[in-house]
Amino acid sequence: MEGLVRNTNYRHRVEVCFVPSQYPLYAQDMGIVVVIDVLRATSAMVAAFEHGVDRIIPVSDVEQARPFIGREGYIAAAERDGQVVEGFQYGNSPLAYVGEDLRGKTIVMTTTNGTKAIQLAKGARQLVIGSFLNLTALSEWLLEQDDNILLLCSGWKDKFNLEDSVFAGAVMERLLESDKFGVEEDSSIAAKYMYMAARENYLGILKAAPRRRRIEQLQLLPDVKYCLTPDQSTVIPILRNGELVRMERP
Amino acid sequence: MEGLVRNTNYRHRVEVCFVPSQYPLYAQDMGIVVVIDVLRATSAMVAAFEHGVDRIIPVSDVEQARPFIGREGYIAAAERDGQVVEGFQYGNSPLAYVGEDLRGKTIVMTTTNGTKAIQLAKGARQLVIGSFLNLTALSEWLLEQDDNILLLCSGWKDKFNLEDSVFAGAVMERLLESDKFGVEEDSSIAAKYMYMAARENYLGILKAAPRRRRIEQLQLLPDVKYCLTPDQSTVIPILRNGELVRMERP
Repeated sequence: MEGLVRNTNYRHRVEVCFVPSQYPLYAQDMGIVVVIDVLRATSAMVAAFEHGVDRIIPVSDVEQARPFIGREGYIAAAERDGQVVEGFQYGNSPLAYVGEDLRGKTIVMTTTNGTKAIQLAKGARQLVIGSFLNLTALSEWLLEQDDNILLLCSGWKDKFNLEDSVFAGAVMERLLESDKFGVEEDSSIAAKYMYMAARENYLGILKAAPRRRRIEQLQLLPDVKYCLTPDQSTVIPILRNGELVRMERP
Repeated sequence: MEGLVRNTNYRHRVEVCFVPSQYPLYAQDMGIVVVIDVLRATSAMVAAFEHGVDRIIPVSDVEQARPFIGREGYIAAAERDGQVVEGFQYGNSPLAYVGEDLRGKTIVMTTTNGTKAIQLAKGARQLVIGSFLNLTALSEWLLEQDDNILLLCSGWKDKFNLEDSVFAGAVMERLLESDKFGVEEDSSIAAKYMYMAARENYLGILKAAPRRRRIEQLQLLPDVKYCLTPDQSTVIPILRNGELVRMERP
């Protein structure tokens, strides 16, 4: 595990929190929080912005999203346990937004893990959304910031998951190429390690994961491949007044 | 990450829980819990048994250990934040027990992380103590068991740590060589991954870890080297009626 951490005179920290319940242990002094739910909430959010939506309102409960079903200008999206909730047309599949004309629309979204992580971290100075879809754009923006950064994995029902941690490691690797950023936490080193092992074959992550069986059962393979394909978008969703909007950049 | 999980028709699970606070999420159906605190509580426990102690009573609070200071037949050990607690002669250093005549003695011990993990999991059908010191003996015994096994990392103040996770991965690798055991959790795969990356150089784990600085400051390097040296003992401490004793084996 040598050569992982070169920087000792860094100005800011970039750290990884593996599960939402540990957020309070890692949140101190972290001005920027990146919420990560690779399969599939944050991938779907980036895909939706890429395909034209104006804003996404993340909500915790299905019942907060339900009134928006069929309302003009709105898309109501609800996922629990990997399935679209009954009565809803959209869940957390990013492919549902591809090829749709979403210009000017607002999505009201609740998911098992991702939107809960957003609610948890909404007090951060800046909360942004990360996924393989916007990996390079996000990393480049983060490199320009003068603040500590926490990469918050949404996990699966508060358990550690591989895909979020590997993505966090991918961001970590890019940030640690700058002397500006360094790490203090063992979780951050572990995430970078997992990324280094997995980067040749992202889909291999899931082949190793027992959850693959569940995913195959749900016939999600096209979704999974889409979610693991980097750099399909340059959009960085950011939370403003409780709503995710497209970050305006020069 | 291919080739990590070969077994699909296993009879029992072996899983890894990275931090004590997540124990309730992983504990269900787990008959055997292995408590791991490589630096240094569970290493010290194995070392103490190897050097002759009769039993170790793990306690949560310093004040439960204090009455045993100086009492005939007892050793009172207390560590907080890596330091021996004031008034105590012993903390969690395994080297404190090497070369001592401890035959017939009882240790009453409290540490920052390890003894708390024991308290948490004491309801398990069987609770045993793991460290690199007894890696092979422990793994061989586990292989003989017909039960699900949870490897419970003590972490550092409930944060993920590398050395406990790498050790869990080492045990995992040995158990997965048998068709008897398989995994369901992503954390278990990640632990095995970390072990595969670190096994050529255990001390390298700590070279990568920022906490190395703290360890060097405390001048613990001889302790750390000792704790990362596998198979110095064949003792498996097991919890019986709230006390750790040497497991009797044929």
